[in-house]
Amino acid sequence: MLFKNITIIDENYKAVPHQNILVRKNKIAYIGADIPAGDMSDDAGDVYDGTDKIAVPGFFNLHCHAAMTLLRGYGEGLPLYNWLFDKMFPFEATLGDEDIYYGAQLGIAEMIRSGACSFNDMYFCMPSVARAVDEAGFKANLSHGSSTNNGKDDCRFTESNGYAGTMGLLDYVKTLDHDRIHVDAAIHAEYTSGPALCRDVAAFAKEHKLHMHVHISETKKEHDECKERRGMTPTKWFAELGILDVPTTAAHCVRVEPEDMEILASHGVTVSFNPSSNLKLGSGIAPIRSLRDAGVKIGFGTDGVASNNNLNMLEEITLGAMVQKGVEHDPLFLSTSEIFAMACKNGADAQGRPDCGAIKVGNRADILVFDTDRPHMQPMIDPVSNILFSAHSDDIVLNMVDGKILYKDGEYLTLDIEKIIANVKRIVNEKLIKLEGKGL
Amino acid sequence: MLFKNITIIDENYKAVPHQNILVRKNKIAYIGADIPAGDMSDDAGDVYDGTDKIAVPGFFNLHCHAAMTLLRGYGEGLPLYNWLFDKMFPFEATLGDEDIYYGAQLGIAEMIRSGACSFNDMYFCMPSVARAVDEAGFKANLSHGSSTNNGKDDCRFTESNGYAGTMGLLDYVKTLDHDRIHVDAAIHAEYTSGPALCRDVAAFAKEHKLHMHVHISETKKEHDECKERRGMTPTKWFAELGILDVPTTAAHCVRVEPEDMEILASHGVTVSFNPSSNLKLGSGIAPIRSLRDAGVKIGFGTDGVASNNNLNMLEEITLGAMVQKGVEHDPLFLSTSEIFAMACKNGADAQGRPDCGAIKVGNRADILVFDTDRPHMQPMIDPVSNILFSAHSDDIVLNMVDGKILYKDGEYLTLDIEKIIANVKRIVNEKLIKLEGKGL
Repeated sequence: MLFKNITIIDENYKAVPHQNILVRKNKIAYIGADIPAGDMSDDAGDVYDGTDKIAVPGFFNLHCHAAMTLLRGYGEGLPLYNWLFDKMFPFEATLGDEDIYYGAQLGIAEMIRSGACSFNDMYFCMPSVARAVDEAGFKANLSHGSSTNNGKDDCRFTESNGYAGTMGLLDYVKTLDHDRIHVDAAIHAEYTSGPALCRDVAAFAKEHKLHMHVHISETKKEHDECKERRGMTPTKWFAELGILDVPTTAAHCVRVEPEDMEILASHGVTVSFNPSSNLKLGSGIAPIRSLRDAGVKIGFGTDGVASNNNLNMLEEITLGAMVQKGVEHDPLFLSTSEIFAMACKNGADAQGRPDCGAIKVGNRADILVFDTDRPHMQPMIDPVSNILFSAHSDDIVLNMVDGKILYKDGEYLTLDIEKIIANVKRIVNEKLIKLEGKGL
Repeated sequence: MLFKNITIIDENYKAVPHQNILVRKNKIAYIGADIPAGDMSDDAGDVYDGTDKIAVPGFFNLHCHAAMTLLRGYGEGLPLYNWLFDKMFPFEATLGDEDIYYGAQLGIAEMIRSGACSFNDMYFCMPSVARAVDEAGFKANLSHGSSTNNGKDDCRFTESNGYAGTMGLLDYVKTLDHDRIHVDAAIHAEYTSGPALCRDVAAFAKEHKLHMHVHISETKKEHDECKERRGMTPTKWFAELGILDVPTTAAHCVRVEPEDMEILASHGVTVSFNPSSNLKLGSGIAPIRSLRDAGVKIGFGTDGVASNNNLNMLEEITLGAMVQKGVEHDPLFLSTSEIFAMACKNGADAQGRPDCGAIKVGNRADILVFDTDRPHMQPMIDPVSNILFSAHSDDIVLNMVDGKILYKDGEYLTLDIEKIIANVKRIVNEKLIKLEGKGL
């Protein structure tokens, strides 16, 4: 496949016009202003005209619960406690493998359209999510969120609280002939776990060489109650229990303190900045400048649809950058290349994918194509600025993941979107009738 | 024109499914679950199938400089002072009527695609903007931003600093056979004006029964320097000079103090909340809760493209609502109906358009149609939530303004978008060669 005469956002996240990109199998084989004739001739059938288009590296969504698309808009306008205990938890309690499969498919469909090439997902029935990722041709780091199920501090890592779920994922991944799906270990959060469970999960992650996924200090309540309960912050507690000893992605970190930031930095943790979810739930705004200055790596995540209410990575990136400029009273905070690095390279690194996160020879071919022939994308004085601050996700006319086109000109090439939507409607309708006495 | 079997966002901004809307000339003639046969028969040719669609009232963009589309992305990454004095002002100094006309057309094209039906615009060469609005079939309250041109405090309202511009608008509007364009008076801002000019413009507005448009307390610098210079805040200064005695829209108000809020409330001023611009320039976040609690009316605005960097009202509304929930640490702050009222009814009232701002019998037919057959719009448990928090502006498949369809299924019906983009590219290229020695 040859992208011809296209503007690229290069590995330094600068725009370079009139480039040609050759993709062979799942990798970028060549980038340059000239087309080396011999090398391209056998790909002549797959030439993509890049005139008025920009090739942008795919985004890494570092925190998601994809199947929560099923809960979109449910409980809108309720106080947090009622939203969670009267709506979210009862709905989730009804979910089984088939529900999770279709919910995840819908989430993946959304992500493909809005610029992601990979995501971190922590949920349950995870082999069903893995199946959805595999079939879609997408990438993901998947984890079963371990918790003590409201149990005691001496509760161990057993079948019912994450062990079976994680082993199910590991077994599933063994059957695959590609490396697009990674299995992570996961502790849901401090307030849903205990020290014995954390020690077990940390040991399991080390033994199986897994990355870790965890929620940390999302809300003031969570952070303060942990300090009361454990005599220390969630970050410090996790560090002491060994959770941060493997490469870890920590979602939220809205309430982390200076000492936490040092711990996160020294353990090489990547923070997933999830601005939509943190704003919409009233949790606040993560201290990105302090985290960055402390040397913590930062990426972007959407969180689940229940608190976002979509899985739009381009929106998330733009929102996150704008909000940080505003709260820091500094229009120069987060340069365009820093923002791109957070969304791409930092995300790829956090997922353990060193050959992803930039359009670069030798890297995996994770390439978005933006159409610039739109009123809001003209004039094109600064393509990088236009992508980050002017574009809509619907300007994405092609999404190639690992060398395969998953979406082009409004059509999904690996997903049957009509079937997915029909199944989601059917499932949600049934759940609502059961829970609310009234369907969609 | 009959919208058949469509979900509507009604005048209380609640979703009502399976409705029919009859539009006659520029007004909504009927809304209901039944189709009164006789009444509809002569409109049979214009039936729109509303299955899986939502009819949403058009949004009012309360603060814009539409022609600044020409400057999109120019000076990205520069410190505020250099951005303004080295890039914005020199570029703007080159702009004439033809430039402004095409720049405004591009801005209007963007706004039509992203949900606005009307906008407030303060700039120069305003008859060219009026021509663009008129031809597009759009609505606007247009004003020439008066300033003393760096002159003295005794500078009066004369030809060169706003009088000619405002009279030019009034003359243009007299030639029209519709009321879609209103002329407003405008003072640019405290730091660019003096007391004599303000008194003159206030008297002119009263004499001609015009609304007023003004920038107030956008930045800390502006607010603090005014207090030093005038011994009072910009709000108080304008109030004392009579500027707020006519119906006024005040842009920004990021730095207003409690006494300012009382003044704004008692004068019935509407604040244009422009979250994108205030965030992107590092100005901060307007105190919307305090303003609302003080009784101040609030609407949304995009500001110009130079500081946004698009004119997407749907994005602006979602962003504004999310940011307020986040900074207030309250997910219930700004209910969905409050958000809609700000974007629609408050905007229409501020513009002096009492029969606009809601889908309601007797009102002007300003109707957006959202397609819900998209992954990110399913399931549709709560249509209002999905419109505000899940939708993309590209889900808008129809924009009807004052009873006339301006945009449908990707096509503009009143604008030649290819010609507009070609002209904008040509103009910007010429300017850049002149200013930077290098074109697009």
